[in-house]
Amino acid sequence: MNKQLILNERPKGMPDGNTWVLKESPIPEIQEGEFLIQNHYISLDPAMRGWINDSKSYIEPVQIGAVMRAGSIGKVIQSKNQNFQVGQTVTGWNDVQQYAVSNGENVYPVDDSQVPMTKFLGVLGMPGMTAYFGILDVGKITEGDVVVVSGAAGAVGSVVGQIAKIRGCQVVGIAGGKKKCDYIVDELGFDAAIDYKSQNVFDAIKETCPKGINVYFDNVGGEILEAALSRLRKHARVVLCGAISQYNNIDNMKGPRNYMSLLVNRATMQGMVVMDYADQFPMAMQQMAGWMLEGKLQSNESVYEGIENFQETFKRLFTGEKLGKLLLKVLD
Amino acid sequence: MNKQLILNERPKGMPDGNTWVLKESPIPEIQEGEFLIQNHYISLDPAMRGWINDSKSYIEPVQIGAVMRAGSIGKVIQSKNQNFQVGQTVTGWNDVQQYAVSNGENVYPVDDSQVPMTKFLGVLGMPGMTAYFGILDVGKITEGDVVVVSGAAGAVGSVVGQIAKIRGCQVVGIAGGKKKCDYIVDELGFDAAIDYKSQNVFDAIKETCPKGINVYFDNVGGEILEAALSRLRKHARVVLCGAISQYNNIDNMKGPRNYMSLLVNRATMQGMVVMDYADQFPMAMQQMAGWMLEGKLQSNESVYEGIENFQETFKRLFTGEKLGKLLLKVLD
Repeated sequence: MNKQLILNERPKGMPDGNTWVLKESPIPEIQEGEFLIQNHYISLDPAMRGWINDSKSYIEPVQIGAVMRAGSIGKVIQSKNQNFQVGQTVTGWNDVQQYAVSNGENVYPVDDSQVPMTKFLGVLGMPGMTAYFGILDVGKITEGDVVVVSGAAGAVGSVVGQIAKIRGCQVVGIAGGKKKCDYIVDELGFDAAIDYKSQNVFDAIKETCPKGINVYFDNVGGEILEAALSRLRKHARVVLCGAISQYNNIDNMKGPRNYMSLLVNRATMQGMVVMDYADQFPMAMQQMAGWMLEGKLQSNESVYEGIENFQETFKRLFTGEKLGKLLLKVLD
Repeated sequence: MNKQLILNERPKGMPDGNTWVLKESPIPEIQEGEFLIQNHYISLDPAMRGWINDSKSYIEPVQIGAVMRAGSIGKVIQSKNQNFQVGQTVTGWNDVQQYAVSNGENVYPVDDSQVPMTKFLGVLGMPGMTAYFGILDVGKITEGDVVVVSGAAGAVGSVVGQIAKIRGCQVVGIAGGKKKCDYIVDELGFDAAIDYKSQNVFDAIKETCPKGINVYFDNVGGEILEAALSRLRKHARVVLCGAISQYNNIDNMKGPRNYMSLLVNRATMQGMVVMDYADQFPMAMQQMAGWMLEGKLQSNESVYEGIENFQETFKRLFTGEKLGKLLLKVLD
């Protein structure tokens, strides 16, 4: 049988036990040109919260009654498609389910002989690509820049900071709790960490970046965005990647009250969507893999098990109870 | 005697009768290398509200007890400086006073034989330069772009829209009241006007820009900024020039709650400060003067009289009771 997670209703605020329901149905039969994937890991990302709202965005909302959209990685276990062989590891948008039928569209074989499969959903997957193009193409970092990143112990933020270090920047990460702050400084080599749970972020940015910020990479929005805006240098770049503090906010969505700091500092705030860079992914993955082999790029995954635990695991994205990339193992 | 307007206290909210005081003192004597300017017109600009706050900005705050900073235009009436002759018309930062002594720094002679003196504080002055570099360099308009500008009947907005028309854009202006809306369409040639006092701006933008906005030039902030953000096209540019709706807002400064539209639409919001372009002013003024002579660039000034009426006149910037550039004639 194939366990699938179905969108049951659109949540107001944080998803709860009624948001999704688990459905079991027979494993589908494949037709000529198709192949069957057994998903091993499902990627859990903050952006998924937006996909279940019924509003215009960069991607269509998941429909009620449909399988929940997700990136995943797994193995081909049956094939009637000559481009995909049984035993191959493949990644793509194969949703929150144990088995998926594909005709090959938007599914990519990966070579997991050198690195664990899970890396292709994290540092070598969408979060890694988001970090790479966000900080290099939108952030336009150059040597000596002061770079601040929020969500710094997360799947995107941890890579952003390390790429900035590789490029000779001074890097300050904002994260929640001592464990994460120690991780980004001691393991990842950030120059400093700010613990937003125990420190005043305004004051801490002032202290760690006495000359101000050249590039702020935002994953969180809310008051931390305001704190960063308050310390911009002239011609600073603010990369808008996410606003995780606001995604479950129903009535009281906050905009940055001090956005006019962009005027005073002739600064730019720019949004990015990683899929726009799809044609450059192979080049970026090759460079990232090189950095990994040289030991310059570390990554961590927090792996939980069981498709039936999806909702509980998903909440960890917003409560912060995970380190690095959050994954759900759905292989029984 | 020289009447000068002195900053008396920093206002909370809208400036009132205690914000400035009028002082009379003897007309100063000039020294070798100096010259004496009799100011004819003082420029009143929304940015001046920011200069009397005690906070970090792109320019030092005006100190309590100092003469209020302002751009002005007038004539040289005494000179011990060989570069400036009696009778010359000069413009510069000569503050809210009837007479100013200068050594020539940041004072520029202008040729007002072809156009009235007042134009050098408006369409050929800072507002015109702000419009020119804001819409061309930051907004990066190209032919066919849908351009929306707020404060569209004002000194900056009216020029922004006309330059966009000259460059082949479709231009929608947002202004307050029928008179201003008629002015920008009938006199200035905008394609459409939205009256924010009588229309729902969200709906009106949807109606006038069915395919969305390529460039939004913001002079006002607040809900109108949010309305524009809600209708951005992919890769849109938002030019931050001002936030006049917020300048007198004490406790409740609003940020755009839907700023994440920048992410969804891969859009850019960028601030600008006109003085950064000072070395290109002569080139821009020449082009603008050409457009004026060809009849492609109209402008209007609302002129009030008497330095003692400064505060009452200044308020018109925020109540909207003026059309085009607001000036105060201080020549007795």
